[in-house]
Amino acid sequence: MNTPIILVNFKIYDEIYGIKGLELARVCQKVSEKTGINIAIAPQVIDLRYIAEKISIPVFSQHVHNMKPGNGTGKITLEGIKASNAVGTLINHSENRVIISDIESIVKKSKELDLISVVCTNNISVSKAIAMFNPTFIAVEPPELIGGNVSVTDADPDIVKNTVKEIQAISPEVKVLCGAGIKNGNDVRKAIELGAEGVLLASGVTKAKNPSQVLEDLASGAM
Amino acid sequence: MNTPIILVNFKIYDEIYGIKGLELARVCQKVSEKTGINIAIAPQVIDLRYIAEKISIPVFSQHVHNMKPGNGTGKITLEGIKASNAVGTLINHSENRVIISDIESIVKKSKELDLISVVCTNNISVSKAIAMFNPTFIAVEPPELIGGNVSVTDADPDIVKNTVKEIQAISPEVKVLCGAGIKNGNDVRKAIELGAEGVLLASGVTKAKNPSQVLEDLASGAM
Amino acid sequence: MNTPIILVNFKIYDEIYGIKGLELARVCQKVSEKTGINIAIAPQVIDLRYIAEKISIPVFSQHVHNMKPGNGTGKITLEGIKASNAVGTLINHSENRVIISDIESIVKKSKELDLISVVCTNNISVSKAIAMFNPTFIAVEPPELIGGNVSVTDADPDIVKNTVKEIQAISPEVKVLCGAGIKNGNDVRKAIELGAEGVLLASGVTKAKNPSQVLEDLASGAM
Amino acid sequence: MNTPIILVNFKIYDEIYGIKGLELARVCQKVSEKTGINIAIAPQVIDLRYIAEKISIPVFSQHVHNMKPGNGTGKITLEGIKASNAVGTLINHSENRVIISDIESIVKKSKELDLISVVCTNNISVSKAIAMFNPTFIAVEPPELIGGNVSVTDADPDIVKNTVKEIQAISPEVKVLCGAGIKNGNDVRKAIELGAEGVLLASGVTKAKNPSQVLEDLASGAM
Repeated sequence: MNTPIILVNFKIYDEIYGIKGLELARVCQKVSEKTGINIAIAPQVIDLRYIAEKISIPVFSQHVHNMKPGNGTGKITLEGIKASNAVGTLINHSENRVIISDIESIVKKSKELDLISVVCTNNISVSKAIAMFNPTFIAVEPPELIGGNVSVTDADPDIVKNTVKEIQAISPEVKVLCGAGIKNGNDVRKAIELGAEGVLLASGVTKAKNPSQVLEDLASGAM
Repeated sequence: MNTPIILVNFKIYDEIYGIKGLELARVCQKVSEKTGINIAIAPQVIDLRYIAEKISIPVFSQHVHNMKPGNGTGKITLEGIKASNAVGTLINHSENRVIISDIESIVKKSKELDLISVVCTNNISVSKAIAMFNPTFIAVEPPELIGGNVSVTDADPDIVKNTVKEIQAISPEVKVLCGAGIKNGNDVRKAIELGAEGVLLASGVTKAKNPSQVLEDLASGAM
Repeated sequence: MNTPIILVNFKIYDEIYGIKGLELARVCQKVSEKTGINIAIAPQVIDLRYIAEKISIPVFSQHVHNMKPGNGTGKITLEGIKASNAVGTLINHSENRVIISDIESIVKKSKELDLISVVCTNNISVSKAIAMFNPTFIAVEPPELIGGNVSVTDADPDIVKNTVKEIQAISPEVKVLCGAGIKNGNDVRKAIELGAEGVLLASGVTKAKNPSQVLEDLASGAM
Repeated sequence: MNTPIILVNFKIYDEIYGIKGLELARVCQKVSEKTGINIAIAPQVIDLRYIAEKISIPVFSQHVHNMKPGNGTGKITLEGIKASNAVGTLINHSENRVIISDIESIVKKSKELDLISVVCTNNISVSKAIAMFNPTFIAVEPPELIGGNVSVTDADPDIVKNTVKEIQAISPEVKVLCGAGIKNGNDVRKAIELGAEGVLLASGVTKAKNPSQVLEDLASGAM
């Protein structure tokens, strides 16, 4: 997957229910095509295949369970994600934490299935632990800044810089994203200057009055 | 929703990943149209909208969280289900149990959103408690019989009969489904004779060599 | 168990760690002996046997799991509670909710072991459902009032009155407690006037500067 | 804490309910005094303070939650453990897994409170991740061998040897325990030869006909 990347988490905002989720996905795709910057999306889980089969930019699941195909009503498997034309999954998002043995197992199986793993973490120490599993991406998001108005790149640039440094020392192929409070191109530019290979954001795009304009601004920070 | 109903839970079997889930949904629809018997489906959650927008028989979510639209990465809301052209949701399946205050809240909100609520229960006593919430359906499934080869209607006909009787006394508008080990038309016939208004089944259809044939047989029991 | 009862939940406040938990238990015992009013306590779980073997007033566990003796590191069984000289357990406290099939199983097994079951609920509808299981007590606590300064008996007297009325109609032997914001004898008096057989409270006693004085005042409301 | 150590997890076996838990704790203490080998225990959580105040060998909690003192009915805090005369806690036992950000936070706070942290892991990869948090001990237990009759030291000696080697490379001060199927002095001897500083076991002692004899045999392997 090319970087830098702007990964847009649709969460379960009412702005993305029904046809609106697909429409936002299309806006992301258009801006990606126009700007040449890699934009990926994580729609609500019940839209996963609906959107993934219609969209050419990378689509991620918001969550996955450490389960094999079989019994598991309401659960999500990596095999199911793979079969849905999605390219990977968020793992351990702050709103959906996972036990460590499951993270290890999911990341390992993602590699086998050629899926991209994006493991969310809350600080440098947890990021270092996760680096041991060699996921494709680690997305560090200080919980106290999530959903706030100040970007992590302004509020706590050191967490980004040091996460990158520490992870490089452990597992150089793991790429770092940062998240929390990301709103504009300037935040993306700083994230990249600090060593991140992209950003993970949600409300900044999903709840924007003009998502297309916001996405173009974000992309401008990645050029 | 017309009854009797045959509700097919696709679970997360590998037989229903990708295009195969849609194909099975279409088989269910064809048999429903051919036989005139109401067949409904609960596809894996990541296929929900993908299948619901293409299929005219009733589609249910396999699970829902007691959450409002907003933050909740990887979660499922009733509002999201509604916007996906699904008609309702399973709640408290034995593979995905829910705390009681969430069941109450979800059933209540389902009514407000005009969604069908199917609450799964494990015995008569829990069924009676759930009846207090007036869901559309209660689906009683003795856990020891789930996934087995003997139908609940043979192994424990009294649980079906008495669940129906007790629930009628508490809340006559609540309809009872039964599940666990349902495999053929004979099982459906007995379920209806025992007072149930349908069945909830999974592997019997999903893992069948010829799902169409099995579904026709099941439907024959409901005629 | 004689009623009215004042049931003091020690929660995990630092005011009750180590020897302080036992000291508060002794204060509760003294006030109970002095006033003749039934006062019971639920110490932090790691103090359960330590306090239960030294105290003659009824001691409850704050939580229990639906597990048999065996494997279950860190879990709590009814058999373990019974063997600890405790008389019963809180179940489904708002800070530790339990799935409905576990509540049913725990209440049933409590009866077999001659333990007192106190199931916490959040509203009238859930209280009615729980009444189907015939626990010893249902303790209704509106979540929005928990930890607040206004007693449920002032803020929402109807929830107490109607919970009592509805539960009487379903299962007359089930006794109702009420909780949330209970602070003084006046609140206890109103609770009893509304039909409750006692109160469940925590910070009002545990965090009081003079717990003995508060307990005497509470007891005065129950005379 | 001196090593080698034999850490006995009482789990929630009915062999350790009530006075029997204290009696087994006393047997452990006697064998420790007689043999000079460090034996520690993790009683069921509701016995924690009851046993810890009467016993001079190290007592561990079986579980802890990542919570501050305050609201949290039925939960266990590090502060509560500390105040109970216990010396530390098991974390992330296979029967009670914990999300990774909680493990990190609990290990960190354990250090601040001068408590011993024993983090359980299921394989080498997870052990390496946990080593990043610098707990006092990592106890590696292959899940497929837990509760079995073959000792991990026979069934999979490499997991012990390599866990030790990998953890030494990451964080040399972290000590390794191994568990699963440990039954006798020979198993302990092999564990130590493989580089472990002790063993974590449960049924081998707790369900033994003559725990004293088994403990003496285990201790002989550590001499």
